[in-house]
Amino acid sequence: MTDEGDRYYHVDGEIAPASGATVSVDDRGFRYGDAAFETIRAYGGTVFAWERHLERLKSTCDALSLAHNLTRTDLRGRIDETLAANDLADAYVRLSITRGVQPGKLTPRPEVDPTVVIYAKPLPRGGLEGTSVWDEPATVRTVETRRVPDEAIPAGAKTHNYLNGILARAELHRGESGAGTETEDGTAADEALMRDLEGSVAEGATSNLFFVRDGTLHTPTTDGDVLPGITREIVLELAAEEGIPTREGRYDLTDVRGADEAFLTNRTWELRPIATLDDREIGGGPVTERLSRLYDERVEQACYSSR
Amino acid sequence: MTDEGDRYYHVDGEIAPASGATVSVDDRGFRYGDAAFETIRAYGGTVFAWERHLERLKSTCDALSLAHNLTRTDLRGRIDETLAANDLADAYVRLSITRGVQPGKLTPRPEVDPTVVIYAKPLPRGGLEGTSVWDEPATVRTVETRRVPDEAIPAGAKTHNYLNGILARAELHRGESGAGTETEDGTAADEALMRDLEGSVAEGATSNLFFVRDGTLHTPTTDGDVLPGITREIVLELAAEEGIPTREGRYDLTDVRGADEAFLTNRTWELRPIATLDDREIGGGPVTERLSRLYDERVEQACYSSR
Repeated sequence: MTDEGDRYYHVDGEIAPASGATVSVDDRGFRYGDAAFETIRAYGGTVFAWERHLERLKSTCDALSLAHNLTRTDLRGRIDETLAANDLADAYVRLSITRGVQPGKLTPRPEVDPTVVIYAKPLPRGGLEGTSVWDEPATVRTVETRRVPDEAIPAGAKTHNYLNGILARAELHRGESGAGTETEDGTAADEALMRDLEGSVAEGATSNLFFVRDGTLHTPTTDGDVLPGITREIVLELAAEEGIPTREGRYDLTDVRGADEAFLTNRTWELRPIATLDDREIGGGPVTERLSRLYDERVEQACYSSR
Repeated sequence: MTDEGDRYYHVDGEIAPASGATVSVDDRGFRYGDAAFETIRAYGGTVFAWERHLERLKSTCDALSLAHNLTRTDLRGRIDETLAANDLADAYVRLSITRGVQPGKLTPRPEVDPTVVIYAKPLPRGGLEGTSVWDEPATVRTVETRRVPDEAIPAGAKTHNYLNGILARAELHRGESGAGTETEDGTAADEALMRDLEGSVAEGATSNLFFVRDGTLHTPTTDGDVLPGITREIVLELAAEEGIPTREGRYDLTDVRGADEAFLTNRTWELRPIATLDDREIGGGPVTERLSRLYDERVEQACYSSR
C-alpha cells in the first residue's frame, strides 16, 4: 500500500498500524503461500454474507488440512475490531489465516499456531444508494495462462498461492512491449479470462464470469476448475428467485463471445458488465441490470436497513 | 523454526536475528506467494554451483516478469554476509526475492522494490569426508495430488507458491486417520511422488527422481511438468562424463516400480537412494553409489580443496 496513512490492520491478535504490520519470514504463509483467505465487504458496518464466508473458509482450510481451531466468534471479533480501529463502515476486508511458523520442513504439522491477518480499506457505500467500485464496464482479454486444475490444487480453495492469477494479469501488460494483448486503444485490459486445460472458459484472475444468451443466464460450472465465488452463488440464487433461466456448464470462448450480455462478479466489484471480450463488444443489458439491482437490494436489506 | 537460538537471517538488506526477522503483511511474497527462491548449499564456506543458481533464479524471475535489478554481486554479498553472521561454513541457504510491497492490486507493476530474504542453517560437512543429511534411504509413496502443469504456472519457476508440494506431502499423513497412505510399518513416507495430469511420473514434492533399468539411468524429462533441479542437472552431466547411458523421458509408475535402482536428488539431500516405492523395495545399487561418489568428488573439488 502506498498511501495507507493511519490505516490499521489486525495481525496475530493485535491491532497494528498498516505500515508496521509484519509476519515472520518463517511463517509458512510467506515461505510457501500456505494460507487461506477471504475477501469480504462490510456495508454500513455489517459484514455481508458472513456465514457463506465462514463456510468457504472452512472448505479452504479442510482442503489444506489446516486445523486452525479459531472460533467464528473470534474471527468475527477481529474483523469488527479492525473496522472499529479504522473507523470504517463501508470497507474491503481481507481475512488471511496461515499455518504459522513451524519447524523448517515442507510437510505440515497437525498442531497449528495460525497467524491471522485482517486487512481493511475504505470502499464506497453499497446497496441501493451506493456507487460502484469500478468506473467503467470491464475490458476483458483471454490469456494463454491456464487455470490451475483441481487435481493439482483444489479449485474450491482460496489460498495465498495466487501466482496463477498474477501470471494471467501480467499477460495483459505484455502487449505494451509488442505481444499484442492490450486493447485496441492501447491500454491493458481490466481482467484476464482464463480457460482450463481443455480450453473451456473457467474464470477471471479475480472474478467469476456470467453471460446471457437468448434469455438464459450461463456461468462455468464449479464441477470444473472454477472458484465457487460467493457473489456468483448469490447471483445464481437471485436469478432462480426471479425465474431467470440459469445454466451452469462448460463453455467455449465462442459461446461467450456471441453472448447478448456478459458480466463479471467478485466481492469488490459485485456485478461488473463486460464492455468487450477480446475487442468484441458485448456489454451489459436488461438481465445484468436486473440482477445488479436485486443484488443492491439484497445488500441494502441485509446491511443498511438493519442498523 | 523452533530452535533458531542466535541464528541470523538477511532481510531487506540487513542482518536480523531469525526470531525477529519479518516482512510486511502487504509484501506480495506474503499476500500471493509472488516470489522466487533458490535452495543452496554452502560447503566449507563456498557456495556450490552459484552460477547455476543465478541462471535458474533468472529463469524464475523471467517467468514471473519480476525485474528485481539486483546484481549477482549484491546477491552473493548478502549470502556471504549471512554465512559470516552465523559463523557457518557448511550450511543450507535459502535465497528468496519477492516483488515487494505494491499498491493493493493483483496486477503486478513493472517497477519493483524487491524484498530479499536469506535464510541459513547449519548442515553437516559434504564432499568426500562428509555425512548425509538424511539418516536412511527414502521411503516414497505415490500420491493423488498431480503436479501443477506448465500451462498454469511455468514448471521451471521455483516460487513461493508451494501448496502443490505441501498437499502432496500432507497426503502421506492422511494414512494416520485411516486413508492408508502410510508405509507398512505405520510411519509416514519421506517423500511424495507426484504424477502429471496424464499419469506420467513427474517429481517428488521437493526432489527429482532417477531410476536405473538394465544399466541405463532414467529421469523424467523437463519437457514435461518437472522442475529443472540443479542437482538433477549435475547428476546427468556426471553420468554423461562417466559414459553411463542416460535417457530423459516420460515414464509410468510401473517403469519406476520395476527399476533395479532408484534415487532422489535435491540440493539438501544430494543423492538419496529410494528404499521403497509404494512398499515395493527398490534400493540404491552400483550406479547410484558411483554417481554419489562422483557428486561428492565434485563438491570436494569445487569447495573444500579450493580453500
